[in-house]
Amino acid sequence: MTSSLLHVPPPQRLLQPLAMPERLMLGPGPSNVPPRILAASGRQLLGHMHPEMLQVMDEIKAGIQYAFQTQNQLTLAISGTGHCAMEAALLNLLEQGDTVLVAINGIWGQRAAEIARRLGANVRELLKPPGDYFTLQDIEEGLAQQKPSVLFITHGESSTGVLQPLEGLGNLCHRYGCLLLVDAVASLGGAPIFMDQQEIDVLYSGSQKVLNVPPGSAPISFSQRAREKMLRRKTKPQSFYLDMGWLANYWGCDGKPRRYHHTAPTNSFFSLREGLAMLAELGLESSWERHRASCAQLCQGLRDMGLELFVKEEKARLPTITTVRVPEGYDWKEITAFLMDNYGIEIAGGLGPSAGKVLRIGLMGCNSTSENVTRVLRALREALRHCPRCRL
Amino acid sequence: MTSSLLHVPPPQRLLQPLAMPERLMLGPGPSNVPPRILAASGRQLLGHMHPEMLQVMDEIKAGIQYAFQTQNQLTLAISGTGHCAMEAALLNLLEQGDTVLVAINGIWGQRAAEIARRLGANVRELLKPPGDYFTLQDIEEGLAQQKPSVLFITHGESSTGVLQPLEGLGNLCHRYGCLLLVDAVASLGGAPIFMDQQEIDVLYSGSQKVLNVPPGSAPISFSQRAREKMLRRKTKPQSFYLDMGWLANYWGCDGKPRRYHHTAPTNSFFSLREGLAMLAELGLESSWERHRASCAQLCQGLRDMGLELFVKEEKARLPTITTVRVPEGYDWKEITAFLMDNYGIEIAGGLGPSAGKVLRIGLMGCNSTSENVTRVLRALREALRHCPRCRL
Repeated sequence: MTSSLLHVPPPQRLLQPLAMPERLMLGPGPSNVPPRILAASGRQLLGHMHPEMLQVMDEIKAGIQYAFQTQNQLTLAISGTGHCAMEAALLNLLEQGDTVLVAINGIWGQRAAEIARRLGANVRELLKPPGDYFTLQDIEEGLAQQKPSVLFITHGESSTGVLQPLEGLGNLCHRYGCLLLVDAVASLGGAPIFMDQQEIDVLYSGSQKVLNVPPGSAPISFSQRAREKMLRRKTKPQSFYLDMGWLANYWGCDGKPRRYHHTAPTNSFFSLREGLAMLAELGLESSWERHRASCAQLCQGLRDMGLELFVKEEKARLPTITTVRVPEGYDWKEITAFLMDNYGIEIAGGLGPSAGKVLRIGLMGCNSTSENVTRVLRALREALRHCPRCRL
Repeated sequence: MTSSLLHVPPPQRLLQPLAMPERLMLGPGPSNVPPRILAASGRQLLGHMHPEMLQVMDEIKAGIQYAFQTQNQLTLAISGTGHCAMEAALLNLLEQGDTVLVAINGIWGQRAAEIARRLGANVRELLKPPGDYFTLQDIEEGLAQQKPSVLFITHGESSTGVLQPLEGLGNLCHRYGCLLLVDAVASLGGAPIFMDQQEIDVLYSGSQKVLNVPPGSAPISFSQRAREKMLRRKTKPQSFYLDMGWLANYWGCDGKPRRYHHTAPTNSFFSLREGLAMLAELGLESSWERHRASCAQLCQGLRDMGLELFVKEEKARLPTITTVRVPEGYDWKEITAFLMDNYGIEIAGGLGPSAGKVLRIGLMGCNSTSENVTRVLRALREALRHCPRCRL
């Protein structure tokens, strides 16, 4: 197969068939993908400017408006994963020298601060220990002190399992002349959020959590206030791929004829469309209730096993991802490996500030069922029985 | 289905099933996706850090090394489309104030210049009319005058149908202390390229052309020289998502334990792995020969119809995308619409500097067959017979 021209031969392992085991994905995401969404992901594609594709994009837009509870015209999906949407939000909102206040109580605030620094923004940090959330008073002190033009906060802190209350936050920010940017990657569809009523200016999420869509696209929406800040920019955003002016046009959000910008990830959009359709069919309130109920059942089961939940207040627990302290004397890696090897179940250890301290159990979208709670609790009970326990 | 809490009802059109027509995609991409790759795209996923997923990534890396003919350790796929790889290449190589020489003979040079300007680089343009390519002498004059640290050039100019000769270019750049950055989005697998022998420092491509993979991931590779320039950076790249230091670690290119960086687009990687596997099975030389033969058959057929090829020199014609002048008196939109409406065949008009001037016919990967050449020529003949011809 090789010949004189080629110095690098065809790799042998690539000539073997692709094989993947079946797993129950109860970590912080990605979650399992239902057959209907997988079928969409495996459809023959069309051109990125074909009318049928533009219609799929219009339907995605309508689906995001429903999931976000917003009527914002500037609503679309980023051609990248949730992380890419975080960058898109920050780089379109911020110019060099803008002050951004980042609420940090887990890894996502840390990441947002890192990205904003790379963009040349003046980054101020508002800190809380992992497991805590921010009160309106915490935020107001930060706003009064730092006078930021943008506040970044995480609705569902997947590294700590904290659900940040959002009530009153938008209004508070606006009284201080600040825009509110919210990360809802881990919470969307699992906990109530009302972009318009809560006066959120920029909201983004991911596809691979409650929506049960393979990672690769990310919903995002901008309020009129956010659009106005972007229109006032003196400099272009550092990225062309994520420039919201171009993306708004490609997504038909600016009323002008659509121009070619980049080749969209067609199959990611097919599957995102189906994930949003399934959420619309189920209904947001049913989805919220499903996640609430599964999480309550899981928390009760964990407590019954004598385990300690990482987030103290019930109302501050993220319904999609539950964090539980690693029981004393155990190595978290032994526990997650036991579940994987013996039950084909993924749960995760901590991440960033929660690394080594917690186990994280995700129940997202179609995975958020009473049956799965029973399965993971049984597996965890067996793990605690069989894993070596060292005296510390 | 709505209730008092929700102000935005579920969108009705999202509740209809997703339906897509069958089309023969003979535009500049995306091209049709074979069933085996669609099946991979529709597979149940795994976690982005599961060992099986890391193995898929290792196989992708080996597949790219084969397709690029390189032994570069820093070889991986970007979690975005080809455009995103262009940004990744530029933003990792360039720091504010670096001089980059951009060879512009079509839209891709224009885009690269636009991106580099946003990054704060000192952008110098080397211009040629659309349809022309750059000689070694053209380049040498630019290098001598501008003293850039990076030269950007497009191997396959999909907007004009030009194949840029690369022989001697890497060596020339290195004699001037300049790195060579090559865009091979439209050419990879369709025309010979030898990254190591041709001394290319950064090479990237897309998935949706010859590889017949849905858009959403993009192969990229960096030479040792390019790595050294990145290691000498004084500032961090403006993007975290595309930071090659982090990506190198996630892809196992730096010899250190892999850390979580972002959630990879698992299903895009499954399909990219299959596209690379099919190329390895066919063999690069067979793939190059297939594209050469189909393109030659198409060009002959177009000339036999009395049409004029846009690229004069045969050796400068891109084997994957053929540009032909819009015959006098016709509106290109009428022709492409006729093929779409009557034959379900996509061909495209021009783009950027070739807009309005040419028709573009793509024969890429599995679409590059003698049968498809016959189909598109027959459809085009009918179009010229039936489309209204206005006297200009």
